[in-house]
Amino acid sequence: MSLSKRMAVVGVGLIGGSLARILRQQGEVDEIVGIGRTEPNLQRAVELGVIDRYCQDPCQGVQGADLVFLATPVCAIASVLEKIAPCLAPGCVVTDGGSVKESLVAACEPLMPAGTCFVGGHPIAGTEKSGVDASFSTLFTGKRCIITPTGNTDERALRKVVRMWELAGTDVIQMDAHKHDRIVAAISHLPHMVAYSLVNAVDGYDRFDESILKYSAGGFRDFTRIASSDPAMWRDIALMNGPAIMEMMDFFSDFFGHLRTLVENGDSAGLQKFFAESKRSRDAIL
Amino acid sequence: MSLSKRMAVVGVGLIGGSLARILRQQGEVDEIVGIGRTEPNLQRAVELGVIDRYCQDPCQGVQGADLVFLATPVCAIASVLEKIAPCLAPGCVVTDGGSVKESLVAACEPLMPAGTCFVGGHPIAGTEKSGVDASFSTLFTGKRCIITPTGNTDERALRKVVRMWELAGTDVIQMDAHKHDRIVAAISHLPHMVAYSLVNAVDGYDRFDESILKYSAGGFRDFTRIASSDPAMWRDIALMNGPAIMEMMDFFSDFFGHLRTLVENGDSAGLQKFFAESKRSRDAIL
Repeated sequence: MSLSKRMAVVGVGLIGGSLARILRQQGEVDEIVGIGRTEPNLQRAVELGVIDRYCQDPCQGVQGADLVFLATPVCAIASVLEKIAPCLAPGCVVTDGGSVKESLVAACEPLMPAGTCFVGGHPIAGTEKSGVDASFSTLFTGKRCIITPTGNTDERALRKVVRMWELAGTDVIQMDAHKHDRIVAAISHLPHMVAYSLVNAVDGYDRFDESILKYSAGGFRDFTRIASSDPAMWRDIALMNGPAIMEMMDFFSDFFGHLRTLVENGDSAGLQKFFAESKRSRDAIL
Repeated sequence: MSLSKRMAVVGVGLIGGSLARILRQQGEVDEIVGIGRTEPNLQRAVELGVIDRYCQDPCQGVQGADLVFLATPVCAIASVLEKIAPCLAPGCVVTDGGSVKESLVAACEPLMPAGTCFVGGHPIAGTEKSGVDASFSTLFTGKRCIITPTGNTDERALRKVVRMWELAGTDVIQMDAHKHDRIVAAISHLPHMVAYSLVNAVDGYDRFDESILKYSAGGFRDFTRIASSDPAMWRDIALMNGPAIMEMMDFFSDFFGHLRTLVENGDSAGLQKFFAESKRSRDAIL
């Protein structure tokens, strides 16, 4: 049995478009309906064969779908769900790709009509690009996808979402939403906060009468690539995952402050140990 | 006229080996003598054709050379120079590739015998690898090299060092050593301090009974690649460029602290502005 007879994808950009591409390639979805606000992007998605047809009205777009994937900016997911909830077919499974889960799942579950089910999900994949033109079918290959079921999640819905992400090529992991939010705060949100701050600090250094950013070499450019990510997306993530992000920022600051003390004290053995521990950890995830 | 009849390279690793390769390729050096402590590395350099012959005694190795390139770890440069100074031929030009300049140039200049000249230099290039096997002739192509002459530098020596780095394919910039140290502290040393701290912080997060580093995706790995760099090298840089590094760490911490306040206050407009400014600066150096 195929995964879905009719799937609706709300937000046909990098994430939504890439998922549609791979599921179509797998022959697992009979029809894909794209939903979004920007008509040229939806037209482009049809041209590219990413979706079969599109609909700008979310409620109309999800009609008859047995699977809905919400791939809008994370702060819009709950409000989109509120709009489409009355139009969902019985048995429909709704899932999302938002990078913050605890507050989102708590907001979404109560919106679901009887006989339908919401399952939170987050594929840990992406690039600094956006829009359907940036999507590609192997975006998720070999990546992790975290699914955050709750006591309200029904087994059938959970299996469907797990299968969807396995078909997309991800390694599916289930955990509670609270833990998810701490983990992504550490491995994704914190590095972005650091990279954005680093670029602003270096560009803002004003002891010379020129921007010293222009002296940056390949290492700096690679290191700060993630500071090219969409500001609006990161604003929303910072707003939605504030407590976990602040916890990680403080945790980072403790380590950074300790390193500063080592530098100030000219502590040769301490510096060697600090850098060697980091290198060992980093090399272990190569 | 060729750049050099006999060039001595002290420390035939990534930097020294790569410079030897490109100058040989350009046909600009008649003979290259490698000097170092690790005989197998020197033998390998001869096998690879990077150097013509080697010598483990520095003083003997530089005899008759008109150009000496010091590519040892930065903290060893002054003590190597102290050893070779008595053996330098009249007219010999000595330069280095150390990534810290102010304290180094101050230590090196007084060591030079009359009729010879030291010129500080720093090619802003490198990878996280080391040893002659990691060297390649295009390492410097299109990169910047900063030369830090002083009032004591003679014109002929300066021209020779500038020409050497132009032959290597770099864009040569001259500035005073103090400014150099602030610039590299910002664009290179600070990112390394940040990356090392980030990896240690994420690996050290202990609220769950597993290391959350294992959940890291491509973005985190790219971002923290520089934390794989040689701990001993970075210990030395932190020891030698402490004041500039601390200044930049504090400057970064101000921006990072401001961002934390924006997150804490849920300041939507402030977050958008902070991220957008960073993206604009970052995209300008693409």
